[in-house]
This record gives sequence, C-alpha cells and structure tokens, in this order.
Amino acid sequence: MAYSSGRHFLQIPGPTNVPDAVLRAMDMPTIDHRGPDFSNMLLGILDKLRPVFGTDKVVIFPSSGTGAWEAALVNVLAEGDRVLMSETGHFSSLWEQMAKRLGLEVNLIPGDWRRGADPDQIEARLREDKDHRIKAVAVVHNETSTGVASRIPLVRQAIDNAGHPALLLVDTISSLGSLPYEHDGWGVDVTVCCSQKGLMLPPGLGFNAVSDKALAISTQNGGMRRSYWDWGEVLKANERGFTHYTPATNLLYGLDKSLDMLLEEGLENVFSRHRRHGEATRRAVRAWELEILCDSPEEYSQVLTAILMPEGHDADALRKLILERFDMSLGAGLSKVAGKVFRIGHVGAFNDVTLIGTLGGVEMGLQLAGVPHRPGGTQTAMNYLAETAG
Amino acid sequence: MAYSSGRHFLQIPGPTNVPDAVLRAMDMPTIDHRGPDFSNMLLGILDKLRPVFGTDKVVIFPSSGTGAWEAALVNVLAEGDRVLMSETGHFSSLWEQMAKRLGLEVNLIPGDWRRGADPDQIEARLREDKDHRIKAVAVVHNETSTGVASRIPLVRQAIDNAGHPALLLVDTISSLGSLPYEHDGWGVDVTVCCSQKGLMLPPGLGFNAVSDKALAISTQNGGMRRSYWDWGEVLKANERGFTHYTPATNLLYGLDKSLDMLLEEGLENVFSRHRRHGEATRRAVRAWELEILCDSPEEYSQVLTAILMPEGHDADALRKLILERFDMSLGAGLSKVAGKVFRIGHVGAFNDVTLIGTLGGVEMGLQLAGVPHRPGGTQTAMNYLAETAG
Amino acid sequence: MAYSSGRHFLQIPGPTNVPDAVLRAMDMPTIDHRGPDFSNMLLGILDKLRPVFGTDKVVIFPSSGTGAWEAALVNVLAEGDRVLMSETGHFSSLWEQMAKRLGLEVNLIPGDWRRGADPDQIEARLREDKDHRIKAVAVVHNETSTGVASRIPLVRQAIDNAGHPALLLVDTISSLGSLPYEHDGWGVDVTVCCSQKGLMLPPGLGFNAVSDKALAISTQNGGMRRSYWDWGEVLKANERGFTHYTPATNLLYGLDKSLDMLLEEGLENVFSRHRRHGEATRRAVRAWELEILCDSPEEYSQVLTAILMPEGHDADALRKLILERFDMSLGAGLSKVAGKVFRIGHVGAFNDVTLIGTLGGVEMGLQLAGVPHRPGGTQTAMNYLAETAG
Amino acid sequence: MAYSSGRHFLQIPGPTNVPDAVLRAMDMPTIDHRGPDFSNMLLGILDKLRPVFGTDKVVIFPSSGTGAWEAALVNVLAEGDRVLMSETGHFSSLWEQMAKRLGLEVNLIPGDWRRGADPDQIEARLREDKDHRIKAVAVVHNETSTGVASRIPLVRQAIDNAGHPALLLVDTISSLGSLPYEHDGWGVDVTVCCSQKGLMLPPGLGFNAVSDKALAISTQNGGMRRSYWDWGEVLKANERGFTHYTPATNLLYGLDKSLDMLLEEGLENVFSRHRRHGEATRRAVRAWELEILCDSPEEYSQVLTAILMPEGHDADALRKLILERFDMSLGAGLSKVAGKVFRIGHVGAFNDVTLIGTLGGVEMGLQLAGVPHRPGGTQTAMNYLAETAG
Repeated sequence: MAYSSGRHFLQIPGPTNVPDAVLRAMDMPTIDHRGPDFSNMLLGILDKLRPVFGTDKVVIFPSSGTGAWEAALVNVLAEGDRVLMSETGHFSSLWEQMAKRLGLEVNLIPGDWRRGADPDQIEARLREDKDHRIKAVAVVHNETSTGVASRIPLVRQAIDNAGHPALLLVDTISSLGSLPYEHDGWGVDVTVCCSQKGLMLPPGLGFNAVSDKALAISTQNGGMRRSYWDWGEVLKANERGFTHYTPATNLLYGLDKSLDMLLEEGLENVFSRHRRHGEATRRAVRAWELEILCDSPEEYSQVLTAILMPEGHDADALRKLILERFDMSLGAGLSKVAGKVFRIGHVGAFNDVTLIGTLGGVEMGLQLAGVPHRPGGTQTAMNYLAETAG
Repeated sequence: MAYSSGRHFLQIPGPTNVPDAVLRAMDMPTIDHRGPDFSNMLLGILDKLRPVFGTDKVVIFPSSGTGAWEAALVNVLAEGDRVLMSETGHFSSLWEQMAKRLGLEVNLIPGDWRRGADPDQIEARLREDKDHRIKAVAVVHNETSTGVASRIPLVRQAIDNAGHPALLLVDTISSLGSLPYEHDGWGVDVTVCCSQKGLMLPPGLGFNAVSDKALAISTQNGGMRRSYWDWGEVLKANERGFTHYTPATNLLYGLDKSLDMLLEEGLENVFSRHRRHGEATRRAVRAWELEILCDSPEEYSQVLTAILMPEGHDADALRKLILERFDMSLGAGLSKVAGKVFRIGHVGAFNDVTLIGTLGGVEMGLQLAGVPHRPGGTQTAMNYLAETAG
Repeated sequence: MAYSSGRHFLQIPGPTNVPDAVLRAMDMPTIDHRGPDFSNMLLGILDKLRPVFGTDKVVIFPSSGTGAWEAALVNVLAEGDRVLMSETGHFSSLWEQMAKRLGLEVNLIPGDWRRGADPDQIEARLREDKDHRIKAVAVVHNETSTGVASRIPLVRQAIDNAGHPALLLVDTISSLGSLPYEHDGWGVDVTVCCSQKGLMLPPGLGFNAVSDKALAISTQNGGMRRSYWDWGEVLKANERGFTHYTPATNLLYGLDKSLDMLLEEGLENVFSRHRRHGEATRRAVRAWELEILCDSPEEYSQVLTAILMPEGHDADALRKLILERFDMSLGAGLSKVAGKVFRIGHVGAFNDVTLIGTLGGVEMGLQLAGVPHRPGGTQTAMNYLAETAG
Repeated sequence: MAYSSGRHFLQIPGPTNVPDAVLRAMDMPTIDHRGPDFSNMLLGILDKLRPVFGTDKVVIFPSSGTGAWEAALVNVLAEGDRVLMSETGHFSSLWEQMAKRLGLEVNLIPGDWRRGADPDQIEARLREDKDHRIKAVAVVHNETSTGVASRIPLVRQAIDNAGHPALLLVDTISSLGSLPYEHDGWGVDVTVCCSQKGLMLPPGLGFNAVSDKALAISTQNGGMRRSYWDWGEVLKANERGFTHYTPATNLLYGLDKSLDMLLEEGLENVFSRHRRHGEATRRAVRAWELEILCDSPEEYSQVLTAILMPEGHDADALRKLILERFDMSLGAGLSKVAGKVFRIGHVGAFNDVTLIGTLGGVEMGLQLAGVPHRPGGTQTAMNYLAETAG
C-alpha cells in the first residue's frame, strides 16, 4: 500500500471515530483507583450513564462486548436453562454459540439476515412454552453485520402478550448512544453494550444495565458459577465510586468525556443526526441501483448500511481496493454473507461532509472495481443532506 | 484538598507511572481491527512478549488482572478439582476466593502475610496427595499486598520432588517486567499477568502465558464451561494477527510501545534497576527504625515495600496526610493489614530522583503525622544510590 | 452555532490540517535546549530541511511567516534600498507595506490579482535600472490570497537576461512542501517560509533559506540594524545543534516528525498529490460554472483554488453558512476581493475522500445559499480522481 | 548515556516543566485563526492575562523572549536614544548588546552579578542626566543567570525621586507568574515576558505589557522603524479577538489552559509556593556549606538558586554527571560564571516531593563528583518543607 497522506476514513460500523477530545482525555497519567479523584470521576460517570441507558444500575467491565454478552447470560441463567434467540445475523449467531458453550439450551428462531427479530414468532414460541422453561428472550437491537434494527418495544409486547415471565436481554452494542433506547421504559432486564460504537471510545469496556428483576435473580443464587462477571460486587463497590477489580482507568477518562459530549449535543439530536445520515446513505445506495441488505424499511439501521454486491462481484475485493486507493476502511460481510456484502458505518462522531467523502470513496471504488452501478449516489445524498441541513 | 501544582507522585505498587511515550502512543485514532495494520501490530506485539514472559504462547484479554486469574483457572480446572494455594496475602486470598466461587476445592497452606509460598509445605502437601487429586498448584509470584516475592523455581522443584503431576499456575501481576521471570525455564504451566504494573500501561489488559501441557488440557475438553476466557480461539486468531473478539486497540498501541521501551532498556537492566531501588527503599525503612512487613530477606520484593506502622498509629491517616500535603499516593494496607501497613511502589517507569522524592515525602509525612521514627532514611537511601549509581 | 459532531473540516489554505502524529510529537515534555538531546534533534532537522528547501543554509525563527518576511528584508537591504515587487495579491501587498515601513523604496509592478509576477515586466524594469539601484526582486511564489503561482525560474531568467545583480527573494509560505521548489537550483537568494502550510505544523516557526551571496551581504555589514532577525548568530549556533535564542522546542518536535513524513511519502509524490487535487478542484469549479480567480492556467496554484462569486452574491455569507451548517472552514476573500472570492485549501495532509467531502460541502453550501451554479462539480471531481487514482 | 527510565527532571530555570494538561491542550487540531472560535479564545486569554501582568494592554508575539526584548525597545526608543541599564548578569548583558545593535546608546551601571539593579545608582545617574537624554531605564526583574531579583518598586521610586521622565522597561521573563508583579501598580511602562517559565508553556510566545505613556510614544511616531514588532496593529486586531499576523494557535491553546491553572491555584498561592521552595533550596545549599551566588538576601530569587562551586571544581562536569547518572538537567553558569556556577530551577509547575528529588539528585551528584560539601542539605530542606507544609 502506498504512503497515505491525510486522515484515514474509518467507516466500519465500529470501532468508530474517536473524537480528539476523547483521545486526549485518555492521554493523562493513570491515577490511584482507590483514591478520592477516582471515586469522584466514577460517580460522575455512573450519573451520566443513566440517561444514556435509560436506567440507573449500570455495571462496567474491563472487557470487550463479548464479555458483556457473557456477563448478561451468567448472572441470570443457569446451565440447562432455555433461552429464546432470534437469528438476525452474525452477531446474534455468535451470542447463540456463546450461550451453547456456557451450557444453555437455545431455542432459535431462524432468520434470513435481512430482517430483525420477529415479535409474532417470539410471542408464538413463548405461548407454546406453557411450563415456562424459557428463562430469557435474547435479542440483538442493532445487528451490526446486517444493518437491521430489531424493534425492542414490540419484542417486549410479544412477551407481555404471551404472559410469559422470561427475562428480556438486549444487545445494544452498536445502537446505544446512536438509536433511541430505554432500558426501563421498554421493560428490558439486561442491556449489553460496549465502548467502541455510539459511545465513541476505543474498545475495552463492556456494560450491563440491569433491572431489579434481573438483579434479584443474580443475587439470590441465580445464574451460573461466576466470579469476574458477577454484578453484585461491582454494584456494591460502585456505591462509593470504586470497583472491586482494577478498573480500566484511562478508558474511563475517555468515557467521562464522551458522555459529556453526548449530553452536550443532546441525545435527541444525536438520534436525529444518525437518522439523517442513515437516510442519506440509503438514498445513495438506491441511486447506485444497488440493494440494501435490510429488506424491511421499518427496521433500517441508522448506524450502518449493509449493501449487497451484484452477482459475480466480490465485496472484499472492493473493500481492499478502496482501502488501498482511498485509505478508507469499510466493514466486511461476515460468515454467511462474506464477500457478498460490504458495510458503511455512519455511527458515532460523524458529520455531513465526512459522510459525503465516505460515499464518494465508495462510488469511486465501485467505478474502479467495475461494479455495475449507476453513478450519482453521492450527489443524491448531497441533495438530501442539503435539503435537511439544520 | 488544596490545589496541587506539579506532578502527582503515583507511588502505589500499580497502576504504575505510565511513560509519556506510552500515553501518547495510545492517543491515536482507533484502527480497523480486521485490517492489515492491526494484524502487523499484533504479530509484532506477540513477538516482543516472548522474551518478557519467557515463552511463546501468550493470550491477551481485554480485562483486568482478575480476569486473567479466572482465565487461568477455567481453562485447565474443572468444577470440583482441587487446587493447592498458599496464603501469602490479600491477592492470594482473592484468587482463592475466586477459585472457590468457580467451584474448585482449595487446599490452602495458611500464611502470616510476611513470607512467600513455602516450597517445603507445598512438597509435603503434594506427597500426601497420593491419588493426585490436586490438579494445580497456584502461587502469587510477587504478593502486591505485602511486598514478598515467592521463589517460583523452588516451588517448581517442590512439585518435581514430590513427583506430582499438578500444573503450576503463577500470578506475575506485579512482577512481570520488573523481577526476573521465565515461564518455560521455570516450568510454569500458566502465567497470569496484566498491563498496569511492570508493563507500564494503564489497566485494561489481562494476559495468560500457556505451556503445551496446559494448552492440551484446555483444548481437550479440560477446564470448565467457558467462552470469553477460552484460549483456543484467541490463539487460533492470533496466528494471523487477529483476535476473535474486538481487541482493546489503543491499549495495544501502548503495549507495543512499552515493550519496545523494556527491550530497549534491556530486561536485565530493568531487573537490576528494580533491585537497586528495592534495596534503597529498605535501607531507608531500616534507618527510620520502622519494620518491613516481609520478614524473609531472600523474599524481599523489589517492586514494592510494605511497612508496618508502629503500634497505635494508623497507616491510612498517614497516607491521607501525605496525599493532601504532598500530592503523593501510597498503597494502603489491605484487609488483614488494613491501617497497619502502607506500601511504597518502586516499580515500572522510575528513577533515582523520583525515589528520593518519594522517600522524602514519606519521611516528611511520618514527621507531620507524629509517627515515631528516626530521621535520615531518605539520606541513607541517597547514600546507597550514590554508591551504586551506574 | 449548533453542536458539531465529528471532525471539523479545516479547508482554509493554511493553517492546514496537522497530522495526528505531528500533534502527538509536539505533546511531549519540553527539554533543555542546551542539552545533548536537543542538539541531536536540531542537527537532524537541519539535515532534513535540505531536500525540502533545496539548499543547505536554513535559518529557523520562533515567529510567524511575517517575521520571516522581515528577516529576509533586514538582512540584505538597507534603508533607502530599492526593491522590485510584483503585486500578485493580498500577501504581496502586505510584504510591500512591510518593506515601506522598514524604509525601503518599493518599485511596484501592479497586477490585477489574477496572474503571477510577470517575468517580462520584471526584465524590463531591471533593464531600465541602469545604475543598479534595485537591490532585490521580491516575489511571492504561491499567492495564498488568489491561488496563483508565479513561475520563479522565469523570474530568475528575467534577472539574468537583464544582466542585473539584484538579489532574488521568494516567499514560499504556501508553496514549500507542496509545489516543486529549488532554492539553489532556481538561483534564489532568500527563501521565506513558515510552518503552517505544506510543512503541516501549527503556526509559530518562520524560515529563511539563504544563498552564499545573501549571507555575505548580511555578514559584511549589509542590511539594516537588526538583532532578532540576524542570520549570523543563528547559523553559528546551529553548527553545533543549538540556537542563540530559546527555540520553540515543541514546534521543533513537530517539525522533526513532519519532515520525516514528507520524506517518507517522497517529495515528488507530495507534489503530484497536490497537482491532482488542484486539478480535481478546478474541474469541480468549472462544472459548477463558477469562475476560477486565476485566469492564467499555467499559473494555477495546486494548493488552493480561489473562486469568484457570481455578481450579487456574498462570499462571506456563503462561508458563514458552510461553517454553521457543515462545520467546514473556507478561506475568505482578502482586502480587494473581500466578499467576492472564497478559497478552498487543498494543501498539506490531505487525501481524495477529504477533498470530496470538502467539495460536497461547498456544493451543498452553494445550493443552500442560493448561489447560481450547475450541480455536479463534486461528481466531476470524483470522476477525475477515480480515473487518476494511483 | 544509558537508557533512562522514568521521568526526566527538568530543573533548569526554564523552560520549566509543562503540565500534562497544558501539553494536552496544545495537542488539538489547529483552527481557523479568522473564525469565531479563535476570536473567543483570544479574548478570553487577554482577559486572563490582566491579573497576571497587572495591567490591561498585553501584546503577544510569536517569538522567543529575545523577540519581546526587541519589541520593547523598538516601539519606544529611536536610534541614538540613551537607555540606562544595570548589569545584573548574562541576560541583562544580552539585552544591553541587543540595544547597542539596534543603535541605542547604553548608559551601563556595572555589577558583579551577585546583586540586583541598584536603585541608588539609578537615581544618581538620572539626576546627572539634567537634559533628560536618557529615554528609558531597563531592568531585568529576575536575572535568570544569577538567581537575583531586582526590586522594581525601588527602581520606580528612584526614577520618581530623580524627577526624571524616563520610561521604565522591565524584563519579567523568569519572574512573571512566579514572583509578585504589578505592571500598573509599580508604574512600569513596558513589561517583557515569554511563555516558558512561570507561564508553564513551551517556548514560542513573547509578551509586552504596555502603559498608556509607552503606547502613546509608539503610536505617535516614536520608536524605530519597525513592522513585526509594532504594537499598534496587534492591539487593534486584538480588540475583536484577532491578530494581524498568523498567531501560534496551538501555543495559545496551551496559554489558555495554563492561565486557568494559575488563576485556579490563585496567584498569591503561586507566589508563596515559590517563596517556600526558594527558601528550602537555599537552606539546602547552606547545609551543604556551599555558597549562594546572590549575596543580597533581600534580592534572593524565589524561582532559581545559583550556586558557586568550590574553587577548583567545574560546575559543568557536575551537571554532566548529574544528567548522565540521574537524568536531571540543571542550569549552566553562563558567560562570566561559566563553569563556576550551576543553577537549580524551582519555578513553574512544581511541588515539594519534586524539589526533594531535585535536591537529592544534586547532593548525590556532589558526592559522586567529589565536590567538597557537608551532606544533609536535602534533609535540611525536608525539615523546612515539613514544618511549613500547608
């Protein structure tokens, strides 16, 4: 690859572009995690997390998002417990595999990777489960591999309609801080998240938000044998602003700053910014006469768009060309859709002109790679952005 | 607390002072962890970790050190397995508690927190274990709560003398990169470490170094049900420079740099620097006529010194005074020795003049807090440092 | 102005976008400027400046570019000396004003701000100056206010054709490191530059490159009374890697890094990158059916493009709208062309997708501001960039 | 020199240790210096400079401190004007040389480099100057080469006693922000300063604070021919938050932050911190039975201490040894006192434990270099610091 001048365009759907101010906040000496400055910072962070998750009990782990998945499962489900999962894409499948490895029995609703979790099927499965062997319904809110966002309130309603006591576990890894989300308001029991998407941080922090019901199970001998992922000690230590493990101090500096930025922009503004960029991107794709992977418009993700390659064209060859010629990273198709799909991230710290550069890079790549398309997608996106500019 | 000018002295025994160059390395945009630049970096890191651990299979987790403890246990031990542990202090006790939580049966050799693991007792216990129910011997190399370093080669020899097949698991959290250590050379099966001590990084990375014997157990259905902590997938993905979870990219930037720094200084030089600072500190303590917690000179830790307070004087009051008046953090006494002990870290990125400032701050604190002592410890340390200056 | 997410687009023609690696290099503790580390760094910088200026005697001042202008004048010209200047735009006029303030007599060749210095007129004026009262010809290489690049080799040839001994002083403030330039090869006597354009640094450093002829004048009682700007002491101190004033240490850290980056990319590659981005931008402007200020194609600047607004439309209103809606800074029209012109910088650390974002922002701005134009300039630039992508 | 671990001790009397928060503030993208964000920042900086200088008209130059010296002279003095200067050390001599180079006639009161400017002699010289040919009295407040602080109010009184109209020019390069200073309150006409001492920044900014009287001279055709250093245009542009040259944007980011830090600590607290560290250092020197260069206790500098070497011992050899063995930079003796004196800086961002480390490093160096001294200076300083700890 030739020497690259200027700024790399990181347009994968996460890790997202970390704002300079967040990087700089992390670039400070590590402090004593048993001292008063740390305690003040952590208490502040926990306060600021509340509006973002829409609840008040949030557990932070030094971990990747997969760690937060594991924490969600092991705190409330025991070996042999049954969990209802919906195949929405690569990440729902990875979570399913993890559940099985941990000894859970997975009741899977299969999917074609082009739609979200189906509330009707969830309700039907729960109605069939007369003796309530299903202990939890686990759904990925925004499926990062496909660009489809499941409608969590409808899933909650499905559970309620079935009159089923199962817990609701939701992976918000690529949605939190970008799509509207309300842990309490939507009746979620465990929310799973991590740092490197809408929270605009490097990877390294996992999160669980926890309902009273979930917490009660965890503390009353529910869940599996566990130590690292146990919520109880974290929540106890958090009360005074501490942790019972050594926290990832410098990532927390960054979190403190990124939460300030989200709240300063205003969550509603953040959400509408993502909606607008999602719509602009989809208009570009349609103008190119390419196909959006998500075929359910009410489930379009606002944080990424996955695009199907025309038959006979390789998405990875396109991505490689774009990386080498234009120094821009795009998301690959994963497992089932490898080579068939590429993904454009429009999530996190982002703005109109960066989106235009991104779409321009994609359009030039399509042209250079000989991928059949109608030129003009970038122009179409510009028209929409100009029309809707604040 | 009044406004503090100048640089905070972080003299807890970890997290240690992160060099500016390491902080700055981490202060760069996050990159695509599925792209070629990431792969090159990770392969380079894995190469540079080899001489530091003294072995070639090292697994990195986004986690705290406690996560790496858990990983060590769950990959090679099954519920109900017996593990022989030695009570050396707070951290050995936390590891013991974790083992119990995870369903292991702990065979504990009690200790008074002033000595390391006793090879003779380990040998005796193993000899008693005729039917080899003990599956592992777990030892903390450098007990951060007490400043006592167990002699791992003697532990290895004890196992061999007993002709016992137990695995040897060693926590090197506060020793690796500061005290001599050889995973292969000393016949260790699992080495546990993390980022924030001798590796001079912020917290957030956990490590396991793994022997062939341990890996074979892990991959052949040994250990417990696990997902996040499983070595197999990490090692497989690492072969091409990737990870099967989203890695803590920016902490890895820092690790890449800190390994360069350790190797540039030269590990032998790093070790002798710590020995010299350990000795200088102990000379200061003796000159103050205070008591070093470790009462076994051949087990003195070179990375921290824990000091017993004279009867009737509170270590935490002293530490608070020193923090408020001199903007220096010292390590607290933990659990059994809370209030009775304070700890001076002399580990990581450190030099003679910083040690003198540190000891001077302690000596001024002793004076202001009315702790009985003979003045002159700082001067004594200076004499030793001057005599032995390179 | 609303809260801005994402990265500000700084597309003024300087200060340019400082690469992260350069900012981070500057973000290190200041060192002793009389110590060996400083000396090694400065000697290295002076070495690396040679290929960039195309000569070996370069003087660095802690100053803005205007300071380097002043230094160029006061070292070789005395009060009352006559200097031949060409009006190419705002910056040539500021240099002219400075010359007058310093007591020089300016012989000015007027211009319409749409062309560079005219070699024929220069030759004619010099031929008229039979008694060689003109001591210097001063030309701005790249006129930042207009986007016109004067052809320095033709100016040199004009002087030679006239057989005139005048010195040649060249302002390369916005050209060095972006347009081909050769101090020695082109027979320049004093080159003026500063840090914040092609050298990809924040402002704060001024440069003079000096021919033997110019240096001889300066050291042999030529020039004006001066102290700060005198070359002699700087050059003497530089020999051993020091300065006779306190140097701007941290900006020099950045310079050390930015020179590494320029040389790693390769100067020829840097120049062709700028040519390509200049051409793409001009194609966009023509597609918009707007007028490029420079009306002499062989003098198009490759580092910025100044664009004339259609009659009745205010460039500053457009720039304000673009700043507020799209968080992008463009260059204003200055003095004579204030309000009539806006300038797009495509200089320094820059790449194709950033250019497309930039042009897209301009095109959306034109639309929102109701400026008459034909849509499609961004698309036209994309076509050109795709055709010519490396 | 061997590899150095830990943090370099920069204990020269400037550049001083730049706080991490200031370095990080500078490590942000350069912005448009003609845009609203810049304007807001500069207006804020000018506000915060007022209490620090004790006046409201402050001019900032991208320059070293020598540039600010030149600016002070050329704005109010014309070639041939007479200026009364007091030889207090190396820096007063450099300023004198500059004055001569610029064509001023210097009336010099000689000194032995161990005392400050003598108010009685100044008064006497001014009384002799019946026809008021002396246009200015120029004094260095804190002579960085000797550690002697002249008493500016007494100098002002001397001028007043003599009934002389001369301007008072004061160099506060190493005093401002560390020693009490009041431009207006003390009747100073031009104050000269720069960024790298008490203002805790890297070098690169020069300052002039200007009285109405001085400004009137400058604007009414007083001073010399000048352009870069002219106050008029700067002050005019500053009114709206701009500059008429390209400002050193990133250094201004740092200044904005460092002023916040000074004002947060409180100037009185800053001054008393320096007094206390000055006294502790002098007590150490006396305990070592070495001689302080300043032999006028009421003129002791609180920002540095210059120490005379015993006969037959070379200060530079000592400094070299300390740099190589202990990674600490000390100030050299300059010109007249080269090799005879070394200087300890205790200025800027600094605290007790850093001072102890510094003195410890000096004491170990004295021992290793075989410099005759009585051990115990560091201990003596510790006793004083403990007694007086806040």
